[in-house]
Amino acid sequence: MRDIGVGIIGTGFMGKAHAFAYRAVSGIFPVSLRPVLRMVADNNPDARRAAHRQLGFERETADWTVLVRDPGLEIVSITTPNVVHREMALAAIAAGKHVHCEKPIAPSAADAHAMMMAAEAKAVRTQVGYNYIKNPLLVLARDMIAAGELGEITGFRGIHAEDYMASPDVPYSWRVDPSGGGGAVADLGSHIVGMARFLLGPIASVNADLETIVKTRPVAPGASERRKVKVDDIARLTVRFARGCGGQIEANWVATGRTMDLGFELYGTKGSLAFTQERLNELLFYRAGGPKGLKGFQKIEAGPEHYPYGLFCVAPGHQLGFNDLKTIEVADFLDAIAGGEPKGPDFREAWEIQKVIDTAIRSSRERRWLDIA
Amino acid sequence: MRDIGVGIIGTGFMGKAHAFAYRAVSGIFPVSLRPVLRMVADNNPDARRAAHRQLGFERETADWTVLVRDPGLEIVSITTPNVVHREMALAAIAAGKHVHCEKPIAPSAADAHAMMMAAEAKAVRTQVGYNYIKNPLLVLARDMIAAGELGEITGFRGIHAEDYMASPDVPYSWRVDPSGGGGAVADLGSHIVGMARFLLGPIASVNADLETIVKTRPVAPGASERRKVKVDDIARLTVRFARGCGGQIEANWVATGRTMDLGFELYGTKGSLAFTQERLNELLFYRAGGPKGLKGFQKIEAGPEHYPYGLFCVAPGHQLGFNDLKTIEVADFLDAIAGGEPKGPDFREAWEIQKVIDTAIRSSRERRWLDIA
Amino acid sequence: MRDIGVGIIGTGFMGKAHAFAYRAVSGIFPVSLRPVLRMVADNNPDARRAAHRQLGFERETADWTVLVRDPGLEIVSITTPNVVHREMALAAIAAGKHVHCEKPIAPSAADAHAMMMAAEAKAVRTQVGYNYIKNPLLVLARDMIAAGELGEITGFRGIHAEDYMASPDVPYSWRVDPSGGGGAVADLGSHIVGMARFLLGPIASVNADLETIVKTRPVAPGASERRKVKVDDIARLTVRFARGCGGQIEANWVATGRTMDLGFELYGTKGSLAFTQERLNELLFYRAGGPKGLKGFQKIEAGPEHYPYGLFCVAPGHQLGFNDLKTIEVADFLDAIAGGEPKGPDFREAWEIQKVIDTAIRSSRERRWLDIA
Amino acid sequence: MRDIGVGIIGTGFMGKAHAFAYRAVSGIFPVSLRPVLRMVADNNPDARRAAHRQLGFERETADWTVLVRDPGLEIVSITTPNVVHREMALAAIAAGKHVHCEKPIAPSAADAHAMMMAAEAKAVRTQVGYNYIKNPLLVLARDMIAAGELGEITGFRGIHAEDYMASPDVPYSWRVDPSGGGGAVADLGSHIVGMARFLLGPIASVNADLETIVKTRPVAPGASERRKVKVDDIARLTVRFARGCGGQIEANWVATGRTMDLGFELYGTKGSLAFTQERLNELLFYRAGGPKGLKGFQKIEAGPEHYPYGLFCVAPGHQLGFNDLKTIEVADFLDAIAGGEPKGPDFREAWEIQKVIDTAIRSSRERRWLDIA
Repeated sequence: MRDIGVGIIGTGFMGKAHAFAYRAVSGIFPVSLRPVLRMVADNNPDARRAAHRQLGFERETADWTVLVRDPGLEIVSITTPNVVHREMALAAIAAGKHVHCEKPIAPSAADAHAMMMAAEAKAVRTQVGYNYIKNPLLVLARDMIAAGELGEITGFRGIHAEDYMASPDVPYSWRVDPSGGGGAVADLGSHIVGMARFLLGPIASVNADLETIVKTRPVAPGASERRKVKVDDIARLTVRFARGCGGQIEANWVATGRTMDLGFELYGTKGSLAFTQERLNELLFYRAGGPKGLKGFQKIEAGPEHYPYGLFCVAPGHQLGFNDLKTIEVADFLDAIAGGEPKGPDFREAWEIQKVIDTAIRSSRERRWLDIA
Repeated sequence: MRDIGVGIIGTGFMGKAHAFAYRAVSGIFPVSLRPVLRMVADNNPDARRAAHRQLGFERETADWTVLVRDPGLEIVSITTPNVVHREMALAAIAAGKHVHCEKPIAPSAADAHAMMMAAEAKAVRTQVGYNYIKNPLLVLARDMIAAGELGEITGFRGIHAEDYMASPDVPYSWRVDPSGGGGAVADLGSHIVGMARFLLGPIASVNADLETIVKTRPVAPGASERRKVKVDDIARLTVRFARGCGGQIEANWVATGRTMDLGFELYGTKGSLAFTQERLNELLFYRAGGPKGLKGFQKIEAGPEHYPYGLFCVAPGHQLGFNDLKTIEVADFLDAIAGGEPKGPDFREAWEIQKVIDTAIRSSRERRWLDIA
Repeated sequence: MRDIGVGIIGTGFMGKAHAFAYRAVSGIFPVSLRPVLRMVADNNPDARRAAHRQLGFERETADWTVLVRDPGLEIVSITTPNVVHREMALAAIAAGKHVHCEKPIAPSAADAHAMMMAAEAKAVRTQVGYNYIKNPLLVLARDMIAAGELGEITGFRGIHAEDYMASPDVPYSWRVDPSGGGGAVADLGSHIVGMARFLLGPIASVNADLETIVKTRPVAPGASERRKVKVDDIARLTVRFARGCGGQIEANWVATGRTMDLGFELYGTKGSLAFTQERLNELLFYRAGGPKGLKGFQKIEAGPEHYPYGLFCVAPGHQLGFNDLKTIEVADFLDAIAGGEPKGPDFREAWEIQKVIDTAIRSSRERRWLDIA
Repeated sequence: MRDIGVGIIGTGFMGKAHAFAYRAVSGIFPVSLRPVLRMVADNNPDARRAAHRQLGFERETADWTVLVRDPGLEIVSITTPNVVHREMALAAIAAGKHVHCEKPIAPSAADAHAMMMAAEAKAVRTQVGYNYIKNPLLVLARDMIAAGELGEITGFRGIHAEDYMASPDVPYSWRVDPSGGGGAVADLGSHIVGMARFLLGPIASVNADLETIVKTRPVAPGASERRKVKVDDIARLTVRFARGCGGQIEANWVATGRTMDLGFELYGTKGSLAFTQERLNELLFYRAGGPKGLKGFQKIEAGPEHYPYGLFCVAPGHQLGFNDLKTIEVADFLDAIAGGEPKGPDFREAWEIQKVIDTAIRSSRERRWLDIA
């Protein structure tokens, strides 16, 4: 096991989650690379210093360009608003770093494409923060589908609903600035679109209806002045997958009362699956053709039989948490850097997801079905 | 309390359910009309005689035209396939009968319109079998919405999924014959569209995607010869309500493992509701702005505080069943006949529902948004 | 099918439930006897007349002794407080009537024994109102256990908790009068003890802890004068079954927030079951030794494969309600009267249940294990 | 923040869990002590070396006596079978170390008492691994009870059921050796007894029924020779709390199909709570006296309002996992070492729990109620 230097840009929700995962991974996974938190960058001095001290980074900087060029780092982790992902990622790639970037990867598929092309040209590894699909039960779901245990898939019904933007008092921010791309369709929609692709493969076409519920937001917390919101609060997509089946997908960040309603129901000719991140250690499975009178959905609980759950805990039913999913993501990334088979999602997959998001936005404007180009 | 004669056409699933309800209602509800099962009509002699004997009808006939003209009947209940509803209903109306008709009311909105016009011209009462919305908890939901307890409604997500057509061995029948209108979109979609309208009012426009999963079906049970299916197995609707909000609706009769997944999630600026017919005695309610750290969805259990639950059982939590919902429907119908305020859904409402179904079918063919005319 | 005259004593919660069931049964079940509601008895004139009119009895009386002797009746249904069950039942038996009695059958096992002996001597059929075990899913559970599908049973954990006595404002009544026997242990405990026996057979010994939570109650609704309560509000039983396994059972009528928490978990060497009346159409089943990584509790939904569900509804998942269970009870009773195999619980079984209740009360007083004599 | 040396004895399930927690804690919590994994001890060389390498210990040893005396360590963590806890803890205390010991603390209350006395005499801090009560939602539950939000508590119903000993093929081991004290009553019972005490305070008396289901076990994995088992597989306790209320508690390690059924229902005069570790991020809460028709159990989801959830994740609903609870335990321990208010459970509390276990075992033998001495 050799050390590998990590730098993280951003110290918010995701900055911390990345730091936790890089700290934890080498204790839990038999990785050949042991991450060392070398440097953190944040232009907010208090946040930066707190992160430096708390999370155990060796150094800190206000200037992310310093970080991406630092020779002691092999991995650059980007956890900033997505409007700046492209610039940071391209700089990191140019410096030969492997790049771990939060989702959505960029405000547009064009940006994502540029990032992907740069990474592939430079042959660095990339990882995008679609942590939920790192859940061992979703890997099980994907494998069951691939193995034909559900027969031919006939439909998908997915959602990612939360309520962090439900209050009209939530101020205007980068989240609702159109320079960052879409609203809920990008922030949450990318998760459920990514999950749909993870399970069922490419989406071929989309018909979307996006709407803005909270029309204006305060320019700052508590401000009486309000600014018009141009991005969506709710996105409703109808999709056709390349494999033939159809589905509906909703992204909603004003879903009052929901904190982590990311899930799906998925029907096949031989069985069905249902999942919600609200109960991330449970997968519901129905197998057609069971014994008469004894049929019904079965609640599969995560356990050591679902790799890599057993690395976290040898006993079934003890449950993984959110941060554990991020740790699995990091383990997969390190493995890819060390030469293993990349498990993704990498920049190419993130670009594919972004194309669906972009197409959904355009479909809603044009009020019609559009193919994913 | 005076007796009122009832005739039922059809003795299948719904024929029995109607008979049970007409038998039970006067014991449970303080109705002023006591239904008497005077006559049953079915062209299958065995079924007819079994129903006659078992369900306690006074007389039986093979000829429904005899039934609709019988002077001893004031109510005619139509539980046959929807392709014949129009003819039967018009004859019953012409004979001055009040008409109770199963859903969907007719193969097309045009048929429904003719039936509605005839009924209104003749001033008979009509009732259509959308029994699920008779659930006291759904009346509570509708009343909460109307009272503004959920604030402005921002979105609806509804589904009616079952799996009775999932097997490719299920033979060709009137259910999949295009003369009856749509497939799942009509049979199940009408329930969830009706429920959406019951809760939120008119649907203004729709964009639908219908598909046929089981392309051919045996011409008869066990037959090797197969016939091409032209109606939908799955319908995915995106809708805009007249009140402004949007939603997604799915109707699916090939949803492997589902037997009664009729439900919705409904979000408002002040609260949210979630319901599934799989647990028909429970309504989930989230109220925004609760005490810090103690927020969450609340499971309201049906009880005597939710009229007319208390007429069935004075103790909360003891639970209504499917047939009880049908009994409430009949009680509402009798009340309307006796001069009370009609609670619906009547033929006019059924026509409105049918327009949404028809428009969805057309939208799917034309691949575009259509207004409900 | 011949008519059979029924008289019901009492018009409260259970009086109504019985009347609904006797009205409904011949429409739903292929019974050879068609119940006719001939007479109702209640000493409250308003209640009596309302029941007469609403429930469709032919006649009414203030004097139950008139009812039990009426030659037009073959069945007497007793739904009064249990302190008077014995007198009424003995009179009805003496008059040669088949007796349907609510639970608990009597204030003591001695009373129950006398009733049982009289009934058996007279060879009349008896039925006691343990309606919950009429649930088709509980019959399934019992049959699975009997067939060895769960292996050797290793433990039972049962509860019946409601909260109708939780408020200290609930007045003193027959429910808490010691002349009626126990408190919660009798009213609710008899249900869960009966269910335990239905599933697993006789209870051999018991160690109980009974306590009174609400020490005094108003002598009448709203009265300031209060009367000391001598019966239990909560009973906690540890039991050993004759088959060898043990269990815990709770009866609790001050369980704030619970309206119908009647249920159990039951473990065997080859599988397990879990059930709650709160979701009476679901039975959870775990089968040991399933495929690796796909194990878990399965939710069996009631359907036509679980007789007699299909008589109520041909489609699975549509759900039975509380009153339907009572209808099944009545169907079983009629079948026994017509010469079929009695399905119980009859007075003998009710006596067996009552012995467990009595022994539990004595065990709690003596603070020790006692065998069921 | 200063470094503090940690040594861990044992590298199994709990050894790893401790190591993960000590690694993670200083990144997540604002602790003033930063744990450094200095040494691991295990007499199995492969396990020891794997732990050394994987978990990042600086040194390893086969001899735990070396570890406890090592001057570089201030904390000794004991994760070995409980039969050896006493010897190790006393040695560590004698060397002036703070001791973190897995549960149950010892085979008997006498041993626990000796350990507690030694620790208190030496004024070292102690922590026992009752990690489940570190759940922020259980702290909320305890605080709600203490604040009177549930009124007077009237009853408790607790369980800890798993199935890791259900198979008769599970070989004889320290778990079932009577030198380690009880069986399920000690291993699982100590968790649910500890949880009951955490929420409701001391248990005053107990009446228990213990039984051995699997009478013999193979002497080694796969061996045909079997050895008689003398400890319990299931323990059923009826208890009275010092505060006045009663309860039932079950510990069961042969509960087929259960992997983490640790939970309770708890009733008060003003409200109720229900919890299961199977869904550790949810607490069900019922508040008496809510608005008519809108009452019901509410599902509180863990979020940043429930300290220290927010240190792990700023967004509600994202969920903690099992290892996170262990991290909270370690944070509490470090805080106590640094001079903060000990949050426990310390050796004194573990002794109190052990007294309940010992008394339960004796009660079962003597078939009678016993006070906790």
